[in-house]
Amino acid sequence: MTCDFCVAGEENLCAMQEATCIGHPGGMGERVRVDSRFVFPIPDEIDSAVAAPLLCGGITVYAPLRRFGVRARSRVGVVGIGGLGHIALQMLRVMGCEVTAFSTSESKRAEAIGMGAQEFVASNDPKALIRQASRFDLILSTVHARLDWTSLVRALRPNGTLCLLGSPPGLIQIPPALLVTAQRAVAGSDIGSRAAIREMLAFSARHHITPQVETLPMSEVNAAIRRVRENAVRYRVVLAS
Amino acid sequence: MTCDFCVAGEENLCAMQEATCIGHPGGMGERVRVDSRFVFPIPDEIDSAVAAPLLCGGITVYAPLRRFGVRARSRVGVVGIGGLGHIALQMLRVMGCEVTAFSTSESKRAEAIGMGAQEFVASNDPKALIRQASRFDLILSTVHARLDWTSLVRALRPNGTLCLLGSPPGLIQIPPALLVTAQRAVAGSDIGSRAAIREMLAFSARHHITPQVETLPMSEVNAAIRRVRENAVRYRVVLAS
Repeated sequence: MTCDFCVAGEENLCAMQEATCIGHPGGMGERVRVDSRFVFPIPDEIDSAVAAPLLCGGITVYAPLRRFGVRARSRVGVVGIGGLGHIALQMLRVMGCEVTAFSTSESKRAEAIGMGAQEFVASNDPKALIRQASRFDLILSTVHARLDWTSLVRALRPNGTLCLLGSPPGLIQIPPALLVTAQRAVAGSDIGSRAAIREMLAFSARHHITPQVETLPMSEVNAAIRRVRENAVRYRVVLAS
Repeated sequence: MTCDFCVAGEENLCAMQEATCIGHPGGMGERVRVDSRFVFPIPDEIDSAVAAPLLCGGITVYAPLRRFGVRARSRVGVVGIGGLGHIALQMLRVMGCEVTAFSTSESKRAEAIGMGAQEFVASNDPKALIRQASRFDLILSTVHARLDWTSLVRALRPNGTLCLLGSPPGLIQIPPALLVTAQRAVAGSDIGSRAAIREMLAFSARHHITPQVETLPMSEVNAAIRRVRENAVRYRVVLAS
């Protein structure tokens, strides 16, 4: 007996063991059946391996750029140049923004500049952070680490927003006067709507937004996860069958 | 010798002692000369004593209602029913919002309901605060006190904003996951633009927004300040000559 929709086959029977199985849930299935409202046509210009991180990291950075009204000449800071940050730099470049990359890895300076940042700030240098005071319309924080929240909020211009895309450990601590006197905000963003995902895919196709991926066969999944843990991946691993 | 623009007179000479004096600065002058861009015609419908708090507390609460897109049926919380809060309740009522007043003074319950709140929450009761989870599009905090920031942020719906109009002592501490998972924001607001002030005055005239004031003669300024310090004023003292 074989399930019609998943491909478990006789030896490894699908848990549901029936012809109306709605597909294996989870990331390791070869096929999955989903509600058509939650699938998106991938534009021909976008390679399948590149589309994968766009549908997670890509929309995560694109949604707040839309929500906070980023436009040409907006000054935007991107904290953390990794899976999310390197896509944000590419998008901000084609939006005509003035972009500053913040990273603790001096080794990423050249890459960040190459991907669209005009400036690079070593975010573990307190003096370098303090020099950024009142500069940014928007700062996207893509990292899951404790940061110098006071300096980052102070780096916002009046009406500017610090938007967290990752959840750092502990509490965020902010002097309230920094928010009140210059109408600054600290916000969070998680993912985007279906409409925003379709828009992001069209935008990425038109402007050649290309997440940098390493493609490995599914059989090397353990090696891939090890490399992710070692922070060695630039910037996403895509497992292909 | 008498200054042309202030009225110090011979016995109490204006510090500038000259005919081109630009007016006494400070709140106790009887006249002041200011740039015409920073004065506003007061609509005939608004009494002068009522206009005074509108130009400070009134615009302070009106500006964020505009900025955060409050409209009919928005759910709005107002923390602190004092000089700012009681004006906010009146404005939100005529905007057609669902309004909840948060106060530590149970004695203000009836007044808050009378001024436009549909609900009253004792903000010093942790359980009452927790019951407000995921309810509000906007919460205006008008107080200068340390609050239960976590419960207030949790009281926001997805995409909701907690807006601080006063600077409480200490740091604001927020669990970042509360911001990220529901796209909530914590923002500050200080005052409004000149355009917003003109609009607020017209709005207040049309909808009879009337800050509750006690009017005292200038000669009783010390008594007035004492009553403010004792938190006995409902809700603003206006000194008139």
